[in-house]
Amino acid sequence: MNADDMILVSVDDHLVEPPDVFEGRLPARFVEAGPKVVRTDEGSDVWTFNGSVIPNIGLNAVAGRPREEYGVEPTAFEEMRPGCYDVHERVRDMNAGGVLGSMCFPSFPGFSGRLFAAAQDKDLALAVTRAYNDWHIEEWCGAYPGRFIPMGLPILWDAELCAAEVRRNAARGCHSLTFTENPATLGYPSFHDTYWDPVWKALSDTGTVLSIHLGSSGKLSVTASDAPIDVMITLQPMNICQAAADLLWSRVIKEFPGLRIALSEGGTGWIPYFLDRIDRTYEMHHLWTGQNFGGKMPSEIFRERFLTCFIADPVGVKLRHDIGIDNISWECDYPHSDSSWPSAAEELAAVTAGVPDDEINKITFENACRWYSFDPFAHLPREKSTVGALRAAAAGHDVSVRSFDQGRFEKQIGVHALDLARNATA
Amino acid sequence: MNADDMILVSVDDHLVEPPDVFEGRLPARFVEAGPKVVRTDEGSDVWTFNGSVIPNIGLNAVAGRPREEYGVEPTAFEEMRPGCYDVHERVRDMNAGGVLGSMCFPSFPGFSGRLFAAAQDKDLALAVTRAYNDWHIEEWCGAYPGRFIPMGLPILWDAELCAAEVRRNAARGCHSLTFTENPATLGYPSFHDTYWDPVWKALSDTGTVLSIHLGSSGKLSVTASDAPIDVMITLQPMNICQAAADLLWSRVIKEFPGLRIALSEGGTGWIPYFLDRIDRTYEMHHLWTGQNFGGKMPSEIFRERFLTCFIADPVGVKLRHDIGIDNISWECDYPHSDSSWPSAAEELAAVTAGVPDDEINKITFENACRWYSFDPFAHLPREKSTVGALRAAAAGHDVSVRSFDQGRFEKQIGVHALDLARNATA
Repeated sequence: MNADDMILVSVDDHLVEPPDVFEGRLPARFVEAGPKVVRTDEGSDVWTFNGSVIPNIGLNAVAGRPREEYGVEPTAFEEMRPGCYDVHERVRDMNAGGVLGSMCFPSFPGFSGRLFAAAQDKDLALAVTRAYNDWHIEEWCGAYPGRFIPMGLPILWDAELCAAEVRRNAARGCHSLTFTENPATLGYPSFHDTYWDPVWKALSDTGTVLSIHLGSSGKLSVTASDAPIDVMITLQPMNICQAAADLLWSRVIKEFPGLRIALSEGGTGWIPYFLDRIDRTYEMHHLWTGQNFGGKMPSEIFRERFLTCFIADPVGVKLRHDIGIDNISWECDYPHSDSSWPSAAEELAAVTAGVPDDEINKITFENACRWYSFDPFAHLPREKSTVGALRAAAAGHDVSVRSFDQGRFEKQIGVHALDLARNATA
Repeated sequence: MNADDMILVSVDDHLVEPPDVFEGRLPARFVEAGPKVVRTDEGSDVWTFNGSVIPNIGLNAVAGRPREEYGVEPTAFEEMRPGCYDVHERVRDMNAGGVLGSMCFPSFPGFSGRLFAAAQDKDLALAVTRAYNDWHIEEWCGAYPGRFIPMGLPILWDAELCAAEVRRNAARGCHSLTFTENPATLGYPSFHDTYWDPVWKALSDTGTVLSIHLGSSGKLSVTASDAPIDVMITLQPMNICQAAADLLWSRVIKEFPGLRIALSEGGTGWIPYFLDRIDRTYEMHHLWTGQNFGGKMPSEIFRERFLTCFIADPVGVKLRHDIGIDNISWECDYPHSDSSWPSAAEELAAVTAGVPDDEINKITFENACRWYSFDPFAHLPREKSTVGALRAAAAGHDVSVRSFDQGRFEKQIGVHALDLARNATA
């Protein structure tokens, strides 16, 4: 399939929270204590809350930078593309990249909102979490119906309150809950504890997907303090197999058959090996460990319950039928350094060369729409939703690769990315 | 290829040390303090050394048991097949399984001999480590020339002494050093520290392979204290990708081009995804992280320097050319629960159905012989080395599946494994 003919719905992108997230959304008594953006003496913008300072507002928001300048910066809003934090600019960037739909994970609260959960005043924590969800659903996603898959933050410290929040969000069309890879490493009861049962029930009842982003366990994959950073970059996504194994063998999977889980930014090429490993583990050991999936093999359970995704994984494409063609979705990872925005469509077209169109459609949008109960075509006709159609609508939007090190938006290094994209398909 | 026509050299098996390992091998002043087997009041045999009691002499030596009885036992010699600790019985079991050659990792000292290294008296630690290596090379391997790939224990606390021991062992034909996945987690300098340079140089000079067994980091893959044990069983082998990444990005790989590494019991199906991941990491990030392999891609370096292995990995077989057909070897894992002994050959034949004979030969013995400088045919002609020929020589050797829970060797449950094997090839 040509890149222009694809329809792209990304199940993993990131937003950088703008300073006004909580404006007008907190009860008067919490306004003073609510999260705020502060500019430091060094010129960084940081979020502050509950005595914590979150020094890197963008995590790794390098979209549009030359690769020489990748790193753990930027740390100020004007060092980022406005598409990181401004939803109108974001939609323009999505159009320029040909991306129809996007699910945006949070940045400064942590993937599971643990910054908010850490507040001693649980009324404050609850007000802030709800305000964040209101902003995300009403303002970020609500500004462009059909362009964003809404996603809620959990309430880690009270599973009943969390379940209620899942139901409140589902009632307004939100069918994704961002969660941690491992609550135990964050100091909460593990996946195996009955503590979470109200949440699993609420997710099952409302058809809400538990979206587990890599790196959300609070533990980095660091082999040694003096290891090169490349080791951590390589291993971080592979770490998510721990969450997959943890949940797959848990009683949760058996007792909540409606619960579905997405391994966000987890890649796919490792899945067939993992499925073979779990089936072999079951065959060799279930007689003494007592595992029982009602006559099914663990790999069958995985395919019923887990959604995977990739940016452009040639091994995953080759093994797509060993993974499950209904279990693979696409992600863009805007604005992080693993993303190939704005030419992600061309990268994907190259990696999926020779794959039948119906299978590509499953990967690029159909699986994402089904799992997340997302219907973009209720808002934009399908023929206007393709990469080619969206880009035509975005003509003139500047997606130059820009250097941020030598000043503000001054140094133009790359060629125009839409030109790049056109060359790649030619 | 029929199972009978295969030649099998296993790069990962385990021996359980018999009580007489150190007999006559320690200087008189260390005999009293040397490691000893003691029978506990509960009827377990335990090794004792330096104030430590190693409660599980067999780790998981369940060969020949019915699967209902798998577990972390056995804990006494008579609960194991004698092939676990008696080299003559071991060779009979190898013959019955059709296995020509075997590399046997240690049990009670730990994969990297850390039990010995923990002794405060470093003269004692050195004497014990050397005595162990002498016993392993002279008595275990020496009893049956051409049947065992010899393997030395390292000296963790002194890299110069370790280098000397590598050279001493290489001079008597030992070209494998068992080592830890991660010295940093054991409290020693990491792979990135220059501390180890004398060892890397000795390994390079002598053509000795650094054999890194999964589970040798001293850290188990435990997600939570209340997680089912199946989670750990699933994840433990996948953990070895951490060692692969740690070494691949290290200065060691760049500065010691002769150093070769085996990922023992690490499986193979995950390797193509890993190679894609490291190449992508390199492409996206090397301009700011400074990685440089002299113009080569990290995946090329991996294929030059790393040997992988599998028991029977259908995903690895399918992806063998994405891994590297010269980088895959076979392992039996006798006597642990992942092993399919005595019908491992039949399992392998099923998994490699349709693979050309020359590629099967690389996987089953040629790669292992080349990497480990092992020449079994100097001792036994090739036509007598096949699975079929070895089994014919072992006719009458009893490999029944036996229950150990209800008494000593009493309850016969399974059918004769050689019959099983014959049925599988028929």
